[in-house]
Amino acid sequence: MTDIPAFKKKIINDPVYGFISIDHPLVFQLIEHPWYQRLRRIHQMALAQLVFPGAVHTRFQHSLGAYHLLMLALQELKNKGIAIDREEETAVKLAVLLHDAGHGPFSHALEGKLVEGIGHETISRMIIRQLIPTMGSQMEMALAIFDNQYPRRFLHQLVSSQLDVDRMDYLMRDSFYTGVAEGVIGYDRILKMLTVLGDELMVEEKAIYSIEKFIIARRLMYWQVYLHKTVLSAETMLVKIVQRAKDLCRKGVPVFATPALQFFLQTPANADIEHPDFLHYFCALDDEDVLACIKVWTQHEDPILATLSRALIYRRLFRLELSDHPIAAERITTFKEKCLQAFPFLDEETVDYFVYSDTATSYAYNPADENIRVLFKNHQVRDISEVENSLINHTVSIPIKKFYICYPKLLLERIR
Amino acid sequence: MTDIPAFKKKIINDPVYGFISIDHPLVFQLIEHPWYQRLRRIHQMALAQLVFPGAVHTRFQHSLGAYHLLMLALQELKNKGIAIDREEETAVKLAVLLHDAGHGPFSHALEGKLVEGIGHETISRMIIRQLIPTMGSQMEMALAIFDNQYPRRFLHQLVSSQLDVDRMDYLMRDSFYTGVAEGVIGYDRILKMLTVLGDELMVEEKAIYSIEKFIIARRLMYWQVYLHKTVLSAETMLVKIVQRAKDLCRKGVPVFATPALQFFLQTPANADIEHPDFLHYFCALDDEDVLACIKVWTQHEDPILATLSRALIYRRLFRLELSDHPIAAERITTFKEKCLQAFPFLDEETVDYFVYSDTATSYAYNPADENIRVLFKNHQVRDISEVENSLINHTVSIPIKKFYICYPKLLLERIR
Amino acid sequence: MTDIPAFKKKIINDPVYGFISIDHPLVFQLIEHPWYQRLRRIHQMALAQLVFPGAVHTRFQHSLGAYHLLMLALQELKNKGIAIDREEETAVKLAVLLHDAGHGPFSHALEGKLVEGIGHETISRMIIRQLIPTMGSQMEMALAIFDNQYPRRFLHQLVSSQLDVDRMDYLMRDSFYTGVAEGVIGYDRILKMLTVLGDELMVEEKAIYSIEKFIIARRLMYWQVYLHKTVLSAETMLVKIVQRAKDLCRKGVPVFATPALQFFLQTPANADIEHPDFLHYFCALDDEDVLACIKVWTQHEDPILATLSRALIYRRLFRLELSDHPIAAERITTFKEKCLQAFPFLDEETVDYFVYSDTATSYAYNPADENIRVLFKNHQVRDISEVENSLINHTVSIPIKKFYICYPKLLLERIR
Amino acid sequence: MTDIPAFKKKIINDPVYGFISIDHPLVFQLIEHPWYQRLRRIHQMALAQLVFPGAVHTRFQHSLGAYHLLMLALQELKNKGIAIDREEETAVKLAVLLHDAGHGPFSHALEGKLVEGIGHETISRMIIRQLIPTMGSQMEMALAIFDNQYPRRFLHQLVSSQLDVDRMDYLMRDSFYTGVAEGVIGYDRILKMLTVLGDELMVEEKAIYSIEKFIIARRLMYWQVYLHKTVLSAETMLVKIVQRAKDLCRKGVPVFATPALQFFLQTPANADIEHPDFLHYFCALDDEDVLACIKVWTQHEDPILATLSRALIYRRLFRLELSDHPIAAERITTFKEKCLQAFPFLDEETVDYFVYSDTATSYAYNPADENIRVLFKNHQVRDISEVENSLINHTVSIPIKKFYICYPKLLLERIR
Repeated sequence: MTDIPAFKKKIINDPVYGFISIDHPLVFQLIEHPWYQRLRRIHQMALAQLVFPGAVHTRFQHSLGAYHLLMLALQELKNKGIAIDREEETAVKLAVLLHDAGHGPFSHALEGKLVEGIGHETISRMIIRQLIPTMGSQMEMALAIFDNQYPRRFLHQLVSSQLDVDRMDYLMRDSFYTGVAEGVIGYDRILKMLTVLGDELMVEEKAIYSIEKFIIARRLMYWQVYLHKTVLSAETMLVKIVQRAKDLCRKGVPVFATPALQFFLQTPANADIEHPDFLHYFCALDDEDVLACIKVWTQHEDPILATLSRALIYRRLFRLELSDHPIAAERITTFKEKCLQAFPFLDEETVDYFVYSDTATSYAYNPADENIRVLFKNHQVRDISEVENSLINHTVSIPIKKFYICYPKLLLERIR
Repeated sequence: MTDIPAFKKKIINDPVYGFISIDHPLVFQLIEHPWYQRLRRIHQMALAQLVFPGAVHTRFQHSLGAYHLLMLALQELKNKGIAIDREEETAVKLAVLLHDAGHGPFSHALEGKLVEGIGHETISRMIIRQLIPTMGSQMEMALAIFDNQYPRRFLHQLVSSQLDVDRMDYLMRDSFYTGVAEGVIGYDRILKMLTVLGDELMVEEKAIYSIEKFIIARRLMYWQVYLHKTVLSAETMLVKIVQRAKDLCRKGVPVFATPALQFFLQTPANADIEHPDFLHYFCALDDEDVLACIKVWTQHEDPILATLSRALIYRRLFRLELSDHPIAAERITTFKEKCLQAFPFLDEETVDYFVYSDTATSYAYNPADENIRVLFKNHQVRDISEVENSLINHTVSIPIKKFYICYPKLLLERIR
Repeated sequence: MTDIPAFKKKIINDPVYGFISIDHPLVFQLIEHPWYQRLRRIHQMALAQLVFPGAVHTRFQHSLGAYHLLMLALQELKNKGIAIDREEETAVKLAVLLHDAGHGPFSHALEGKLVEGIGHETISRMIIRQLIPTMGSQMEMALAIFDNQYPRRFLHQLVSSQLDVDRMDYLMRDSFYTGVAEGVIGYDRILKMLTVLGDELMVEEKAIYSIEKFIIARRLMYWQVYLHKTVLSAETMLVKIVQRAKDLCRKGVPVFATPALQFFLQTPANADIEHPDFLHYFCALDDEDVLACIKVWTQHEDPILATLSRALIYRRLFRLELSDHPIAAERITTFKEKCLQAFPFLDEETVDYFVYSDTATSYAYNPADENIRVLFKNHQVRDISEVENSLINHTVSIPIKKFYICYPKLLLERIR
Repeated sequence: MTDIPAFKKKIINDPVYGFISIDHPLVFQLIEHPWYQRLRRIHQMALAQLVFPGAVHTRFQHSLGAYHLLMLALQELKNKGIAIDREEETAVKLAVLLHDAGHGPFSHALEGKLVEGIGHETISRMIIRQLIPTMGSQMEMALAIFDNQYPRRFLHQLVSSQLDVDRMDYLMRDSFYTGVAEGVIGYDRILKMLTVLGDELMVEEKAIYSIEKFIIARRLMYWQVYLHKTVLSAETMLVKIVQRAKDLCRKGVPVFATPALQFFLQTPANADIEHPDFLHYFCALDDEDVLACIKVWTQHEDPILATLSRALIYRRLFRLELSDHPIAAERITTFKEKCLQAFPFLDEETVDYFVYSDTATSYAYNPADENIRVLFKNHQVRDISEVENSLINHTVSIPIKKFYICYPKLLLERIR
């Protein structure tokens, strides 16, 4: 490749790590690609900024951050004598940069809703595949790593496992931008303790306390931030708004939208995602389209769409109650009845837009998933959840499930 | 006022200061107002995020941050025996929260361009005036403070002067979010050294070095960040895009836009800003409208609008050259000629959309503006620029003016 | 009290919290007292600096830090309507400032060894009592709070419990100075969630995750820092050095020492601590005496004292092996035999100076001690260890006990 | 070299930079040497901790920090294609680690006073020379670099110039430990802008603002911290104490001291520093000896020594007045007269121990010293003080000289 010598290293300022280096022309080419630049317009934490105003960072920064941690991890592994060739190194960097490329507007909050039934990993895979013709064999290897088809499994595990650079970056970054200092983890220490045995990623024994801290930090961030009741309220309202806009479109009611958003509002659930239009419009769509249109919808003639849109934009959010136990059916019924009285434009069929109940679940550590292996000095390997005296035991490995009900605040007064 | 006892203090997480307290119902009412919530959708640093990806923070956070610093400043002054009554305290808080409310999309970058010829302070004033009927006498006093009509001038100086909480917050916050650690200032130290003599705001003698550092940090942020050549390029391109969209509208060419943006694209320069529509549409307009529409314009049939829009959205920015000396006229002419060859859809009249030259100016310290007074132990008062051994002398007080030319990168190759 | 108006608030720079305010003349008087100034010369983390070179901070800073957190806690409680009068406020501040005043050289590392059989709390109490005549009724109340004799128990709990400001400061500060970022806790969040019910200190329900994080951080700091095997080695060697110096003194061998250290080297175990000399010499003794003398002892004619002293000063530390299981008696015997061969100046009686075995124990949370109570929204009160889904369950509440053996490194080669 | 493969990289926690790596066996051997370990017992900022309690860090940490920055600088230069061979790399690391090895107790505060007339660089050189026999050719090259005898001058400039890693580390570290956030510099940015032209160290043009910030930060730290009037008072009192102890020794009055301190108290000014005892005792001497003995001297029978010692240990410091103008001779005389009245044990000859006047000088940037060269894009090289629009002009390049008088506080009352 003749242009490598000509490539001048780039550095990017990052408030979390200081500087991030771009040291390979393919990596630079990818970052400059419109499909990667699009991540600048997708917030990392969806609507969490309505509670944590600082949390306005984007998938663009997060992906760069994960790439930075990957570089540190690769350096450590190479220092420990693990052979990683230049092609593998570039490929795994491309894989980590693209791991979130398939996220649509508001990431998880709208995942499977706006683009019905399709998860972001499916689309990330489509994007990687599309880039192979122009970016060559390294991108092909990146796809294999992403899909866990590459024989050296630790490369996949660095990108996607319970101890991947994705999680390390989002915990650090989300903690930094929300101001919730408690999410801070010892990422540099964990990275220094990574090792590889038989192509599997492990941590050395002395990292156990840092790993515990990492898992506990993640647990804390879930319940204190990601599933904060006001955040959950805003994000479920966003889902309702999109559903209503889709319903109206299907009924032929005109709904203002950018072309990209229009495409997905009108796409039926069982659409052919292989059609070229799909990826074209998907890669033109981001948070901006959705927010700009919801602002317009605050003036829509459909009172359901307009009321929901105003509530979100003006931050008059519904009340959301979290509970360890299922919400009693009568309680839901009572709220719906009051709601029908309060909002005459609702009926039996549409009252679910304003009163709804569901569950939120989180695992601190899932022993059934790509798990965290500890390599002991005596060469034993054990899952972190099986280490003696470890915190990561049954308590932490059981998913926590919470139940919630969500409804307009004014109903509360009517019920009391 | 009967609802004060019922008011429960709110706290807001902020990554820069930890927690920000909302301790008064009027302050809370203002923050909840849609006109204040709108600031969530205006980036503090316009397009600086194209160079500093972390710099995606908003005017919402900045205004809250300035309010937080104001609270600390008021506490210090009261500790030093300066009498400030509860009404003044609330009024100055309202004033600082609203000091940026009149910013339109992309703040300074588009100021006077989209809403032609109108500065943000004029609109902030209109907004404050509109809020008086619902928020009462404190808002009236806030307007007097904002307009420097209130007799106790130090309240105005806290909100707007060369040592105001606005500057302190934006230096701290912009430094934090860009990752340019050098912009950090000793805001806590400066605040502890504030004092008031004869209703004028001053700093105590021992704050001199901190003030120097503050002014030097501002100077550094200007040239390293705010006027970074790539940032300047992006922001001038944004101006060109808006101008082109306006031109097309005036010629009757349809341009996709949200209703609020449509209003301003079609408003002539000498419009009546007192017409109720003006403020209605202004307060519905933010960065989202502009960005979502520019994305749509990347497919517009007008090649000028489409090319500029694509260059911005896909980050294929024009090259901008900064110089200490005026750009030679021949150089500009040469670029324009090459440009006309390279882009056949341009003509003499429109080539200025692609090749343009202008100046950027910044003052580190402007001795003619609301200046910084130092109170010496011997009760003398001197301007910081007149203090012996001080750095803030003629060098720093002279505005630095730089000249620039901006053009598509491919022209460079044609010229060499 | 006539001198309060004349008292000018002092501020002290602190790298952890920014500024610490001294706002009461009695507090200032106490900090200026030689007995408080002495804490400048007692390292907070004893010999941990041999592993974590940054950890050279002192009990002086820690006590000021705990006092700062106490001020924040009192402010929060008063904001929540808990009545705390000015006298109580001053008394609890004095109590927290003095909570560590009874620490001798190298705090816990030498506690009960140099001053045989006497814990630091006994001496703190003696010091407080001595200060009553000059500092009046507030100091008397401080003693009652310190001794948990004051009826409003939450004041004692702020100073001494499993959620006291002492622990919060040392976790923050030790984490800061060691560079072990993982010890960082959300102290500001915890403080904001403190409340009082029936004179007992509690935390609000929503603090649960922060409390978990606090307890886990403490657990991590214990095993990663405080009981780090090299730190433990150095601190047990320090104990051996002091024991040897005492032994020599008792045998009449001259040992160089400052007068204060000489006093304690020669004081028998059952000495009368009420004798005025005791407190006089104790308050003249700190880390400097011990270190300066150990340096001199590197040249002592007794080879045991000289060898141990050199090993510590030149950082040729003994190897310490930690184990989850008791050290086998044969292993200890083998090491002792090799040691007797390697160091001919040792005999059966003195070989324990070079080869020794013991245990180290730590509780993450001790449900039998002053425990942490959670106040639920439904007004229930539960111990943190009994909260559903909480991590602070049996695993964390069981003390972890580790066994160790310590011996000169060269023995290892002889045994292999 | 056969032992390099066997060398396992060490990492050291550092609160300022996270982790510092020891990646070469010679570097490790040096750090383990008793002469390097001794730096653990020399405070970086002498008595500044009496004003900034956090500033208790040591020369040991500072030297490691400078070494860390050097490694980053070498990495950058190598990335830019500057050839630096392995031997040069090791040698310059050894040189930077030892640059402060010749500091005696309390570094600059006692420099030339306790060890009369000898600066720390002379002793650093002696130490390096002594280490050559055991550490070989790299140490010989380290000496050449230290002495600026090595032809590639940039290696010396990295260790010692106005832009050396020594200054960068001490600004960062002193700022960190004092809590004076304003001393923070963009060291990572400056390091990334370093370059070499013709064996001279330079910075690239775009580093100008960061360099300005660096010089201004240094200026601020001088006047706000290093020459803080209370710090200066304490450090001049320390000098007086040592002078008095020496005087007494010379008169044959017994003064308690550790052997190492005793040696220097009794060494006359023109002693033979080449005598082997000199370096032996010097390397046994540190802050601990001095502080432990001053504590003993608080009870000395000589009232001058005892009074000064008590004033320092109990922090009853003399008042120091700083002035831009010389102290009037009459003012000094008046203070001396009052002092003779207040302290009957003083006479004409000894009153200078209690009342004294002198000057303190600092350069922000000294154009006559190893200066800072800027490499412009047009390949011009200019001194930073000659750059157009630069702050580092005549104002900053002129040394600031302040005059002071120092006297016991009680005299102030007698004079008023």
